Amino acid sequence: MMDASNGSANFEEINSFFDSAPSLKDGEAIKRKVEEFLEGRANRVVCVTSGGTTVPLEQRCVRYIDNFSSGHRGAASTEYFLKAGYAVVFLYRRGTCQPYCRSLPDDPLLECFEVTNGSNVTVNPIHAKTVEGAIIDNHLAVTRGTLLKLPFTTIFEYLQILQLIALSMRSLGPSALFYLAAAVSDFYVPWESMTVHKIQSSSGPLDMRLAQVPKMLSVLRKDWAPLAFCISFKLETDTKILVDKANMALKKYNMDMVVANELLTRKEEVIVVTKGGNVIVQRDKTESGADVEDPLIKLIVDTHSSYITSKQIV
Amino acid sequence: MMDASNGSANFEEINSFFDSAPSLKDGEAIKRKVEEFLEGRANRVVCVTSGGTTVPLEQRCVRYIDNFSSGHRGAASTEYFLKAGYAVVFLYRRGTCQPYCRSLPDDPLLECFEVTNGSNVTVNPIHAKTVEGAIIDNHLAVTRGTLLKLPFTTIFEYLQILQLIALSMRSLGPSALFYLAAAVSDFYVPWESMTVHKIQSSSGPLDMRLAQVPKMLSVLRKDWAPLAFCISFKLETDTKILVDKANMALKKYNMDMVVANELLTRKEEVIVVTKGGNVIVQRDKTESGADVEDPLIKLIVDTHSSYITSKQIV
Repeated sequence: MMDASNGSANFEEINSFFDSAPSLKDGEAIKRKVEEFLEGRANRVVCVTSGGTTVPLEQRCVRYIDNFSSGHRGAASTEYFLKAGYAVVFLYRRGTCQPYCRSLPDDPLLECFEVTNGSNVTVNPIHAKTVEGAIIDNHLAVTRGTLLKLPFTTIFEYLQILQLIALSMRSLGPSALFYLAAAVSDFYVPWESMTVHKIQSSSGPLDMRLAQVPKMLSVLRKDWAPLAFCISFKLETDTKILVDKANMALKKYNMDMVVANELLTRKEEVIVVTKGGNVIVQRDKTESGADVEDPLIKLIVDTHSSYITSKQIV
Repeated sequence: MMDASNGSANFEEINSFFDSAPSLKDGEAIKRKVEEFLEGRANRVVCVTSGGTTVPLEQRCVRYIDNFSSGHRGAASTEYFLKAGYAVVFLYRRGTCQPYCRSLPDDPLLECFEVTNGSNVTVNPIHAKTVEGAIIDNHLAVTRGTLLKLPFTTIFEYLQILQLIALSMRSLGPSALFYLAAAVSDFYVPWESMTVHKIQSSSGPLDMRLAQVPKMLSVLRKDWAPLAFCISFKLETDTKILVDKANMALKKYNMDMVVANELLTRKEEVIVVTKGGNVIVQRDKTESGADVEDPLIKLIVDTHSSYITSKQIV
C-alpha cells in the first residue's frame, strides 16, 4: 500500500500549507515565551493541545468551519499532568475550558457572585469552594512556572504554534510528551484560493470544495521532535470503525499511543491503543465526580516512564 | 422582478425548514418563560438577538459552520435599551458577550481576581470597578424583571426561539421592537439530508452543497408580529455594495430600518437605512470609551416613539 505520509508528497503538502498560511501574529513573542518557559528545565514537559480549530471560509472572515470541542479533556488532563510533576504547555482554543475551571458554570462571574445589602458583591456560598479553588490553583501553577497557556483560533495558528513548541521541546528528547487532544480540522480552504470578501447569499445554493489538511503527525514524529513520546486522539461517532481507525493512525503516523473515544461515551471511557495492545480506561463509577482523565493520565505517566528508561538504556 | 419572499414559495420553504428541523429542547419551558416575562407588560419591549448561529454538518455533530460575531453589539445595545426604559428579551449565542460585561477580559475569573497572603482571594484593584459594576448592573436588570436572557447555538434553535418570542410579542402591537443583530447563517444543510456520522477524511477533498436558509424576516413582518417595529442588520466586508444591499433588504423584507455596517469600521460607525433616507451614526470620538451603540439606540428610541404615535393616530 502506498503511504503518502512516508513519501515526499506529504512534506511538499506541509511546506505548501505553511508557505501559503497567513503569517502568525506575535510569532516571535510566542517563541520567546516558550523558550523562557523551557529554559534550564530537566524534568518532563508535556504539550497539551485542547479545543477545536477553525477554518476560515473568507479572508476577511465572517464565516468559518469549526470543530466541536469544549476543551474539557485537555483542561482536566492538564491538572493531572501538573499533579504528576510535569510542566505543561497548554495550547488551547480561545474561550474553551481552562484548567481548574471545569466545575464552574458557563458564565462564572455572573452566576457565582451575588449582590447583598444593595451593593456588596460576594461569592455565592454554594460556589465559594469551586471559585476559590479555581483561582488559587490556577494562580499557583502560573506563578510556580509550571503552566504556560497559549491560545489559538484558526487551523493556521494552531499548526504554526505547535511547530514552534515542538522545535523548542526537541532538545528534551524522550522527556518531552505530546498529548494532542485538540480537535483539528481535516479540511480547509487554502488561503490563496480563498475569496477575499463575504460570500454572497443571493445566488442559490453554495458549493464548496475543501482541501485536506496535511497530516502533521508524521512530520512532528520524524522532523520536529523525533524522540518525544507522542499521543494522538481519534474521535468517532461510529463505534464500529473507531478502534480500526485508531490502529491505522498508530501505524501510519508512528504514534506511541492513540486514545480512541466515541462522542457519546467519551466522558465515561476511552480505549488506549498501543503497539502492545489495547486497554479500556474507565472512570471510577463508585466515586461521584470521578473522571476518566484521572486513570488515563496515571497510565500515560507510567508508560512515559518506561519509555524514558528504554531510551536511556539504548 | 419576481420577488420570492412575497410569493407562496417562501412560506413553503419556511414550513419545510421548521418541519425538518430537530425539535427544540425545552421548547415548552422557554415559551412559559417568555410568556411570564411579558405578562401584564404595557411598556415597550425589545427583542435583541446577538452572536452567530451555527450550522451542523453532521447529525451527531463534530463539525459545524459558524458566523463570526463577538456579541458585543447586542450586549451594548441591550444596556442602552434598558437605560431607555425598555424591557429586553436578549436572545444570544452561548458564550458570547453579555450585557454589562463588555469591558471585562476574556476569562474574568482568572484574570480579575488574585490570591493574597497565600489563600485570600480578592478582586484585583485595577478591575474592581468593572467587576462590581458588571455583577451589580446585571443583578439589578434581572431581579427587576426587565431583562430575560435566552441562549441558542444552532440556526435551528435560533429561528425556533425567535418565532416563539415573536408570536408572544405580537400582542404588544407597535410597542414591540425587533433588533436583529445576530449573525444568522445564510446557508445550511437540511437535517434530513445530513450525514448521521462524522464525515471521514480519508477520501480526498470534501465537496459540500449547502442550501439557502429561508429568509425569516418576511414572515416575521407579515405573520408573526405584523405591527412590530423591525430592524435588521447588514454586514459586508465590501463597502461598495453595503448600502445597496441594505436598501434591498429594507424593501424586500419591508423592514422599518436596516443598520448597515462594514466589518473593519463597525465599532466606529454604522449607516442607518430607512425609507426616509440614510443617516450615518458615529461614536463620539472626543470622549474616550464612547461607543456607536449609544447614539444608535437614541436614534432608534426616537424613531420607535414616532412609529408608535403614528400607529395610534391611524
